[in-house]
Amino acid sequence: MKQRLTIVKIGGKILASPSQLSELLRQFTSMEGQKILVHGGGAKASEISKKLGINPKMHEGRRITDQAALEIAIMVYAGLMNKTVVGELQANNCNAIGLTGADLNCIEAHKRTVKEIDYGFAGDIKTVNTNSIKTLLNIGATPVFCAITHDKKGQLLNTNADTIAATLASVLAKNYTVKLILCFEKPGVLLNAEEDASVIKSLDQSTYQLLKSKGVIFAGMIPKLDNAFQALKHNVNEVVVGGADKLGEGTDLVL
Amino acid sequence: MKQRLTIVKIGGKILASPSQLSELLRQFTSMEGQKILVHGGGAKASEISKKLGINPKMHEGRRITDQAALEIAIMVYAGLMNKTVVGELQANNCNAIGLTGADLNCIEAHKRTVKEIDYGFAGDIKTVNTNSIKTLLNIGATPVFCAITHDKKGQLLNTNADTIAATLASVLAKNYTVKLILCFEKPGVLLNAEEDASVIKSLDQSTYQLLKSKGVIFAGMIPKLDNAFQALKHNVNEVVVGGADKLGEGTDLVL
Repeated sequence: MKQRLTIVKIGGKILASPSQLSELLRQFTSMEGQKILVHGGGAKASEISKKLGINPKMHEGRRITDQAALEIAIMVYAGLMNKTVVGELQANNCNAIGLTGADLNCIEAHKRTVKEIDYGFAGDIKTVNTNSIKTLLNIGATPVFCAITHDKKGQLLNTNADTIAATLASVLAKNYTVKLILCFEKPGVLLNAEEDASVIKSLDQSTYQLLKSKGVIFAGMIPKLDNAFQALKHNVNEVVVGGADKLGEGTDLVL
Repeated sequence: MKQRLTIVKIGGKILASPSQLSELLRQFTSMEGQKILVHGGGAKASEISKKLGINPKMHEGRRITDQAALEIAIMVYAGLMNKTVVGELQANNCNAIGLTGADLNCIEAHKRTVKEIDYGFAGDIKTVNTNSIKTLLNIGATPVFCAITHDKKGQLLNTNADTIAATLASVLAKNYTVKLILCFEKPGVLLNAEEDASVIKSLDQSTYQLLKSKGVIFAGMIPKLDNAFQALKHNVNEVVVGGADKLGEGTDLVL
């Protein structure tokens, strides 16, 4: 029988709130079985950019990563955010190890091909090195991935954290029974974006398409849910999109 | 028989020169046997501090680490420097993994006790977790440590990279035959600081004390050599202080 593995992704807004982050990391620590944490950090990266006088460049909600933005992403995601999370988890006696895709060559990516838009040093995932990740899990480590990958030629790249979490879940589903929890500032997928009580308990793909076409689900939720449904199609056992207060509760996705 | 382990420490000025760093990492990659890299990054941290309008505070060559300085140290050492090095080593097919002392709880420290000077979030090493480091070496990983430790209570701390390298060497000498290479911008310990050709081939402790008392050896070299002689006393097999061009050549220290 496959071992159980839970992959939790937390967003930038949770990371920006020390008390919310601590509470979430306590819940994460108390989760049984093998687990992986994946985090973003865009909010803090934007703050540091502004302090350095660099304006973050965006295109349709996606960050354009020039050299200056890449350096900030590496500093904030792989440095400040990742090690703050690792330090807190260690204080909870969770044996965390912070990683980028470059460490043990865990996640290899290629620089996104330039079509209409040049996204700069944005990395699209090419290979997940399952052996490296399994080895870390087997020695009792809890991997904490930030949103940095590499091309195995010395170039670090910026990769969306939701995509990393969903891809890890999909690839590792060959070896583990995987539950993916995408955790953000809302308690789940909402029928009314202004109304936290309007959480959809269970969302299937055709309802998702309908709600998307009607504009009920929009903006940043769309790539998040596209990633999440992809993971389900790749045999991830369970996908939940939910809040930080009650880790693992929220909207259950079904095919 | 004990396995051989080489620990190489590289300083901030080498890290600031991409071509020198690449050459050094090529040499490091081609070294046989198990190995660990330790790096600083103070030069880049000072540069980022200035850009953020924060003046680095120093006392007798030692950095005073307030909250703002700590955040910059974490971003630059654990983020930018560490992951740049890991990315380059991976491109060389060296299976590097970047670490702070918090990762796998490798190095536990305590906040330096306030006496005349409050060094802020400076960490003095308390425990090296030999098991974590041995486990990583045994799975074929090459640990790359930056100058960040933690107190196991959620607080990250700034620890001198020379001290980390010498302490790792001393502690791991119980399990390995250790060679420690402290690599900096000069080709070795110099009889005349202005004259690169004046490298002392072999330096014993009494000569060191004499040269120190005469002011021939001064400033930053003193804590570096104090650390290095400490390592020799703790059964480190070989200690070399030398340049980046020819890794492992320079001044051999003897007791």
